[in-house]
Amino acid sequence: MEYRQLSPETVPGFLKDIPIMQKIFSDLDDLEVEEVGDGNLNFVYKVRQRKNPEQTVVIKQAVPFLRIVGESWPLSRTRMDFEIQALEHHTKYCPQHVPQIYYSSTDMSLVVMQNLTRHAVLRGEMILGKIFPKLAEHISSFLANTIFPTTDWYLTGGEKKVTVGRFINPELCKITEDFVLTNPYEDHETNVYHDEVTQADKDYLQQDSQLKVAIAEMKYTFMNHSEALLHGDLHIGSIMVNEEETYVIDPEFAFFGPIGFDVGAFIGNLFLAYYAHEVRQPMLGREPFEYRNWILRTAEETWNKFQSKFEANWVAHEQNFPHSYWSYPEGRIGFALQRQRFLSHIFEDTIGFAACKMMRRIYGLAKVADIAEIPDLKARLGVERNVMRMAKGMVKQRSAFRSIEELTALAQEISPLS
Amino acid sequence: MEYRQLSPETVPGFLKDIPIMQKIFSDLDDLEVEEVGDGNLNFVYKVRQRKNPEQTVVIKQAVPFLRIVGESWPLSRTRMDFEIQALEHHTKYCPQHVPQIYYSSTDMSLVVMQNLTRHAVLRGEMILGKIFPKLAEHISSFLANTIFPTTDWYLTGGEKKVTVGRFINPELCKITEDFVLTNPYEDHETNVYHDEVTQADKDYLQQDSQLKVAIAEMKYTFMNHSEALLHGDLHIGSIMVNEEETYVIDPEFAFFGPIGFDVGAFIGNLFLAYYAHEVRQPMLGREPFEYRNWILRTAEETWNKFQSKFEANWVAHEQNFPHSYWSYPEGRIGFALQRQRFLSHIFEDTIGFAACKMMRRIYGLAKVADIAEIPDLKARLGVERNVMRMAKGMVKQRSAFRSIEELTALAQEISPLS
Repeated sequence: MEYRQLSPETVPGFLKDIPIMQKIFSDLDDLEVEEVGDGNLNFVYKVRQRKNPEQTVVIKQAVPFLRIVGESWPLSRTRMDFEIQALEHHTKYCPQHVPQIYYSSTDMSLVVMQNLTRHAVLRGEMILGKIFPKLAEHISSFLANTIFPTTDWYLTGGEKKVTVGRFINPELCKITEDFVLTNPYEDHETNVYHDEVTQADKDYLQQDSQLKVAIAEMKYTFMNHSEALLHGDLHIGSIMVNEEETYVIDPEFAFFGPIGFDVGAFIGNLFLAYYAHEVRQPMLGREPFEYRNWILRTAEETWNKFQSKFEANWVAHEQNFPHSYWSYPEGRIGFALQRQRFLSHIFEDTIGFAACKMMRRIYGLAKVADIAEIPDLKARLGVERNVMRMAKGMVKQRSAFRSIEELTALAQEISPLS
Repeated sequence: MEYRQLSPETVPGFLKDIPIMQKIFSDLDDLEVEEVGDGNLNFVYKVRQRKNPEQTVVIKQAVPFLRIVGESWPLSRTRMDFEIQALEHHTKYCPQHVPQIYYSSTDMSLVVMQNLTRHAVLRGEMILGKIFPKLAEHISSFLANTIFPTTDWYLTGGEKKVTVGRFINPELCKITEDFVLTNPYEDHETNVYHDEVTQADKDYLQQDSQLKVAIAEMKYTFMNHSEALLHGDLHIGSIMVNEEETYVIDPEFAFFGPIGFDVGAFIGNLFLAYYAHEVRQPMLGREPFEYRNWILRTAEETWNKFQSKFEANWVAHEQNFPHSYWSYPEGRIGFALQRQRFLSHIFEDTIGFAACKMMRRIYGLAKVADIAEIPDLKARLGVERNVMRMAKGMVKQRSAFRSIEELTALAQEISPLS
């Protein structure tokens, strides 16, 4: 099939030629198409049957440029190849937290998938102060169950290396390298500062040599440590939720990288929300304690459950395929020590990357609405300064934290719960 | 060109069809061919013109199996593709320490190169107790000049990732993963023990949980950290020398891995020779001091010069292509701190991998003649115990050494110079 860019007009005809669509739609001649305008990189269409709107799919198609900028920013369509491969992997190892994929085509750079009609983007829901009691349980499962099977603890060396090769994703990695791990820490033309930001604020981030070396080390880790297949962009805008269910979407940034990058992306976004809600809860007419407490407990639960689920996967795999390496009288002690040290290493990376994800959302090009849409700039600046103080402490001292509770305690020290 | 396995009989006809050979040989109808029997993996032929034997080349051809075992151990010929690519890279960045390549063919899985007639393999020369005053100077140059241009400090992220993909070398990496980083540390069927080795000796290596976790961490680093293009097998049998010149050969294990693996391979082999010469120098009728002192000073000089040359390459590159990341008043301090921390990290890996390279040569399948050919088994055992004690201290405490001189002091503590 030759690539062509779809439009709302051509989507129905395209779907009609896909046999599996007959199982989704009872009448393929009665489809309505809505272009969803909020994609940064790609075109997204919601398709419904007019008479039975519960019969619905989403189409996501990549175009050979960055959608939000236009043809002046070329970006190869291969990003959809990575998204399709990653969705297949996520579906294989964690189907309950991935939308169902009905059809995909690398020729057309598109995927047709489940329309999550009863779910909303987590970031928007958290801005509204909604609580999702199962969030940590679900995200920790998604992380532990999709990541473990792509590590060297599961794959053979040969399988792993071939898979690493299939996921070499230079273009989207470069976006992260530049916009998450470089530009915000220098006075770069792509940064965006609001009017209340002072030179001293910028210098606090951009002229602290110890901090800059720590960030450069995280960037080096990002670029060199091919530990596991990652989602690559696991902020709370890549998660759709309701009270019962959690879905992870948009894995076009997928690549083999350091495990802590995915875990840290999610936890860093929780800390951003924690600081935002010092201001947002009063805006919503509430006392801040309850919601902010839920956020910090969710961060703790996510790490602690991720850690125990990842370790359980590892132990179960070792029981099924024991290594003779550990088959000596004290071998169980050795294996336990190995797991403990490995998870400490992942924790250190998690803290470091969470901090980068936090800082880049303050001065970098891409903001988070949690903070950037606080209308009172002075109040926003206060939130941002708290974020920066926390993030600096995290990345510079990332090897010193012995538990997630030490991290949430630091968050509260900088901005008390209420 | 279709692949065919050459033989001493077919080599002359093959060379005659390569135009460049007319510049090497004045008479292509008068060639004599000698098969060199000492290759483990490949077939090697030395070709000379009978009347002018200074007109000579070496041919190295891969066969689809491990030469030393035979067709029962299949090994894909792609290993020669990696060797050719690596030789091209080494030639580009460090021609003075790489044999000249006259011709290569991935179809035929072979390379035709300079016959180093005035040079001998370093391991054999060191067994004979010969001193090479320029060795550290040359090897440190080879390491710093071939490694630096493949790091993220030199290449763009995109260039690096594409190059990493071209060097994914699962088969030869697996040999290292198994025979260097796994089997020697368990009671594995591929290990070889001589008659004097006791159960307590084996347990000292194979049942020390702290040690085994440390080794597993080095293996994980080997498998996950794609820092730079490495030679991959830089022991002293991959180096040819005379008093004036040093050549590095046999890079079929080339892949993107942790920089300390190459540096550690060489330094670990020096320590093996250091311990061997406690016995070998008396066997040669000499006092041990002078030669063993030269070995330790060579280890120190190699690391210290590698470090300063690598850093000089980095500083020069930054001067030519300055990063705006460091363009703030104290930026030079930040950049200097980054280099210092990075080189400390490489040093830690160097020590860990050197230790693995040492231990695997004692119980693993592949020995080093320095030690394995000591005829008195009791004397050999004494040497091996010293190696094991040193290596254990190195890998378990690899983050604690602050200079190479601390390491050579440990070597002398375990076995004094004389």
